[in-house]
Amino acid sequence: MSSHHIVRDDQEPALIIANGAACNPELLGQLLEWSPLVVVLDSAMERVIELGIKVDVLLGDFDHGFDPEIYKTSQYPIEIVHTPDQDKTDLEKAFDYLVKRKIPAVNVVWATGRRADHTITNLTNIVRYRDLLKIVILDDHSKIFLLPTKFEKWYTAKTPISLIPIGVVNGIYSTNLQYPLQNDTLTMGYRTGSSNSVAKDGLVTISHTNGDLLLMECFD
Amino acid sequence: MSSHHIVRDDQEPALIIANGAACNPELLGQLLEWSPLVVVLDSAMERVIELGIKVDVLLGDFDHGFDPEIYKTSQYPIEIVHTPDQDKTDLEKAFDYLVKRKIPAVNVVWATGRRADHTITNLTNIVRYRDLLKIVILDDHSKIFLLPTKFEKWYTAKTPISLIPIGVVNGIYSTNLQYPLQNDTLTMGYRTGSSNSVAKDGLVTISHTNGDLLLMECFD
Repeated sequence: MSSHHIVRDDQEPALIIANGAACNPELLGQLLEWSPLVVVLDSAMERVIELGIKVDVLLGDFDHGFDPEIYKTSQYPIEIVHTPDQDKTDLEKAFDYLVKRKIPAVNVVWATGRRADHTITNLTNIVRYRDLLKIVILDDHSKIFLLPTKFEKWYTAKTPISLIPIGVVNGIYSTNLQYPLQNDTLTMGYRTGSSNSVAKDGLVTISHTNGDLLLMECFD
Repeated sequence: MSSHHIVRDDQEPALIIANGAACNPELLGQLLEWSPLVVVLDSAMERVIELGIKVDVLLGDFDHGFDPEIYKTSQYPIEIVHTPDQDKTDLEKAFDYLVKRKIPAVNVVWATGRRADHTITNLTNIVRYRDLLKIVILDDHSKIFLLPTKFEKWYTAKTPISLIPIGVVNGIYSTNLQYPLQNDTLTMGYRTGSSNSVAKDGLVTISHTNGDLLLMECFD
């Protein structure tokens, strides 16, 4: 493989498989097809191996009696990254690892479901990577990412769009949403923009002046 | 039944069955045993009926082609509450209904899982009911409630405790946690108290001066 290839591959989103509820194998298969680098978090490895997936990096604190060394042969040349820092979650450590490798984008699966504390922490902690890494969290019902201060994307009519403020978000304007925002403030717990939707086929624009705003495309 | 009975029954927590992922039937059975009033949200009714549960109140906007009237006979004397307000979620409308009936406490199941926007909205919107209703959200891996400014409860050693700030929470002190808090500030997305645990068998105390702090008891 030429160095040209290596550089190009690293521009495609990596894939992190976290340690929450497994997603539909079809979603996982689609993401694997395009990911040049697959990172698995800690003991999720046991469930990933059962699916016959080739893993590039296994990362975690490995502090619950889980032995990563057994995968050195079966998943050769897997890289094993031991991250004992107790101040960060395994998912944050995986983000830090990718930033250090200068990988610009990542899709994340298995980051939701099961424990509510892990779900809410995983979804909300992505805000601190705003300028470091383009993160998309996916599960069987949701696609979640942090909005830049000016965002625009083409959607079909009636696509459900939820705007979730992580804390307080000010000066929000939107176009082409069913419930338009016009210099609005959203505050987590008090006023959120959940369950909005796209008014008609075409560009949706959403801008805000400050704060951290997640966009969630969710469906039943 | 005497009026004395009716008053006493209404002091026990009601049960709301929301419209997310179903929980373990065993958890649902335990909660049903003690609940004097069972409220089901919108089309979750179809899944609830299959479990042979007697429902007291069916509440929702019923705007997705779901006809609540068919349950009037089979679930007699069920109360059907039509709540078309689009500014609130069905779960908030159910909280409002209970507040109006002067019911002081409620357990909520099926409020998590499936769509991430619904999960995060359901978990975080409970903060606005601080002085109105004692709310506990439960699923197969989690028990979640809003902390009063001074909280104490007896726990066994190593019980996982996550402290999740909804926005910014200041002046947090704890005793008997593995990672103690000492006049700390937690900020959603930036510094949370996820994955703490109880140090030793005994009382845990957690206090804070302002902000909304959720306690989550979660397990794998």
